Amino acid sequence: MRSVSITRTSVRFVSDKASRFVPKSGVYPQGFSVGGIHCGIKKDGKSLDLALLRNDFGKDASAAAVFTTNKFKAAPVQVSSKLIKEKKGVGINSIIINSGNANAVTGAQGMKDAEDMILVTDSVLENPVNSTLVMSTGVIGNNLPIDNILSGIPKLALNNLGSTHEHWLTCATAICTTDTFPKLVSKQFELNGHTYTLAGLAKGAGMICPNMATLLGFFVTDAPVTPSALGQILKYSVERSFNSISVDGDTSTNDTIIAIANGAAGGPVIDNNSSTAESFAVVQKEITGFAQQLAQLVVRDGEGATKFINIHVKDALSYKDAKIVASSVANSSLFKTAMFGQDANWGRILCAIGYSKVSTADSIVPTKTSVSFVPTDGSEELKLLINGEPEVVDEERASEILKSEDLDIVIDLGTGGGQSANFWTCDLTHEYVTINGDYRS
Amino acid sequence: MRSVSITRTSVRFVSDKASRFVPKSGVYPQGFSVGGIHCGIKKDGKSLDLALLRNDFGKDASAAAVFTTNKFKAAPVQVSSKLIKEKKGVGINSIIINSGNANAVTGAQGMKDAEDMILVTDSVLENPVNSTLVMSTGVIGNNLPIDNILSGIPKLALNNLGSTHEHWLTCATAICTTDTFPKLVSKQFELNGHTYTLAGLAKGAGMICPNMATLLGFFVTDAPVTPSALGQILKYSVERSFNSISVDGDTSTNDTIIAIANGAAGGPVIDNNSSTAESFAVVQKEITGFAQQLAQLVVRDGEGATKFINIHVKDALSYKDAKIVASSVANSSLFKTAMFGQDANWGRILCAIGYSKVSTADSIVPTKTSVSFVPTDGSEELKLLINGEPEVVDEERASEILKSEDLDIVIDLGTGGGQSANFWTCDLTHEYVTINGDYRS
Repeated sequence: MRSVSITRTSVRFVSDKASRFVPKSGVYPQGFSVGGIHCGIKKDGKSLDLALLRNDFGKDASAAAVFTTNKFKAAPVQVSSKLIKEKKGVGINSIIINSGNANAVTGAQGMKDAEDMILVTDSVLENPVNSTLVMSTGVIGNNLPIDNILSGIPKLALNNLGSTHEHWLTCATAICTTDTFPKLVSKQFELNGHTYTLAGLAKGAGMICPNMATLLGFFVTDAPVTPSALGQILKYSVERSFNSISVDGDTSTNDTIIAIANGAAGGPVIDNNSSTAESFAVVQKEITGFAQQLAQLVVRDGEGATKFINIHVKDALSYKDAKIVASSVANSSLFKTAMFGQDANWGRILCAIGYSKVSTADSIVPTKTSVSFVPTDGSEELKLLINGEPEVVDEERASEILKSEDLDIVIDLGTGGGQSANFWTCDLTHEYVTINGDYRS
Repeated sequence: MRSVSITRTSVRFVSDKASRFVPKSGVYPQGFSVGGIHCGIKKDGKSLDLALLRNDFGKDASAAAVFTTNKFKAAPVQVSSKLIKEKKGVGINSIIINSGNANAVTGAQGMKDAEDMILVTDSVLENPVNSTLVMSTGVIGNNLPIDNILSGIPKLALNNLGSTHEHWLTCATAICTTDTFPKLVSKQFELNGHTYTLAGLAKGAGMICPNMATLLGFFVTDAPVTPSALGQILKYSVERSFNSISVDGDTSTNDTIIAIANGAAGGPVIDNNSSTAESFAVVQKEITGFAQQLAQLVVRDGEGATKFINIHVKDALSYKDAKIVASSVANSSLFKTAMFGQDANWGRILCAIGYSKVSTADSIVPTKTSVSFVPTDGSEELKLLINGEPEVVDEERASEILKSEDLDIVIDLGTGGGQSANFWTCDLTHEYVTINGDYRS
């Protein structure tokens, strides 16, 4: 099975991006098994469409999750958010995910299907009841081919789980829809003399909400983190990663990010109280950086994207305002189209700064605002606007910088507040219009 | 001069839209003269780029204006908003407008240039000082060719003003930048036994902020309305017209709408107090409908637009929430691209409803939400979603409806609140990306 999956992976993801952004190897946390199979949702009869993560460590794991704020919540979002709340983040030992059908706007049958996916997974894995969270992504408005899924779960759980790089890559592939490559990240860090490992995966090829739901992902660690600490860290890190990216600004019915910590690597328990404040800070920093790596892969795979753009806002009055300004620029169709056209159009950046809905009038002062392109090759920055006055831009130099796939735009609000935020986005291209102008056919 | 201008107009605007949306004749309010000339801003050496409106009626007119909320306000916005505030809307007797250069992000020189345009206009028209408002639209970051403008003003004011349809069309043409047709509307209404006339013009080819500033316009009437009443009516009508349209969601450094009422048609003065409440309501209704007509022309001319889409939200808890929902759908890139692709993608509509930032959780209840396409030819509506349940959509019928240039989408929130709002938008097309991907060259 494993080699078959991998062959499919290589066949399916032939893009240049796949070869550059899919890891060839990885380090994975102790005590987790993952896998993916084709169970009969995707119409080609072979693409992977069912993924599973299991906590193999003999103790209850800690879990936390963030869900879409969209009023139209898919059945799996409703079911999973209720379950994790009831269990207060304790005893979530597996995640079952299908792709190809979002189980959204599917009425009572949809709710029952989501619940049945949990029931069967728990049963096959010999979990206590309600130990599993469920996620779905794909077309909305159609009921799941639930028989295929329910009969696929034992096949996946009993014969196709493992902890090798290939298993992780297969799992990451099985949650993809229109993604052009699977998104998988892993890394290690040291704390209290222990080595901890983080691994995570995500899907989301361009906020193509809601026909194929937008953004799903999970990450797991073998560090011993309490549910409360994990919840706080997840919220903080998602705010600075998955909630700091934009492909087209839409948020879907199915968005879900789950974190699980099983403590399999040992060491003192990390909680969010004063006695473990130092360890907490380390874990939060590591997880935030990790989540950013994963979220950035989603931007890299933005539909039709040719550019990866980091908007860095600095010296804002607050983190919140810094993020609002960065988000305003990142979501401007005019700015995104100018980046596609490799046009050093500082006016569109300035305009989007100017209409961002910051909290106070002091947050944006035109005469204190500066904007630069910072080349990612380490060469000198190109100043576009200094304290509200436009520079005479060397168009040749600008055009040279804008040819690069990776662009850094630095917006200095000059308020003296010293707060900063990053936001990652991609360009708006002909290909985006082509893909989304006739997505369903 | 007049015939020369008209020839230019016909040569310049050769689009199919120009022939359909530019009026062949009009009725114009008493006591106003308008005109436009080429003064030397636009580089082709002939396109009209300076426009003027003058109140010829022997009494001070009432004026009101709304300006961009963008933090980066162009010099003319700063100067005009200060002036009209100081004069409390009394004694504004002319408007001078240049196109081709927005006089935005132009420092102290820009402020002086805007002030000089007022000074020279007042002087030539023998107005008291500070009787003129100034607007500019065009490229930002460059200082105005102020000598050309200041020497153009007497030429325009003394030899090129008039009150015929041709003068109005010339004036409307002179404020255009990348517009594919001039936007001019006029109409009459009866009140208290008097016939009053409204005329107005606007520019704004697709929120192409900020290199060419977005949205400029003015409308004038010969009805006798007090400054306070006019201010209230302008705010109400702009909220439901120019602030209820979206081409790409960006708002510019220069957005300005001015209203002037000179009372030349006589009749009892209309104020916003209880004794004239009935007349006030009539004028407000007439001006709002009029402003909507003008604003809709801006959407018709949205960059690259092939569709004109009316989002009608009904049975909301409040007007504000109805507008928030309508605006969320109208600004969704995914929805706009689907309309370009003529794809009956109710999921994207539902998604954008779901993430709209309404004021309370009760404002959007999935199980009460219905969505339909209402054909503009009067044939039967096509229901997509009823009380949150997707209908089986007749794709052939949907595709037939979506072929139409004009699309009406009705979103029934079913809250029992009974409030409604309209929002007008266009589709997102390849042409939009082409135009904005390399606008400056």
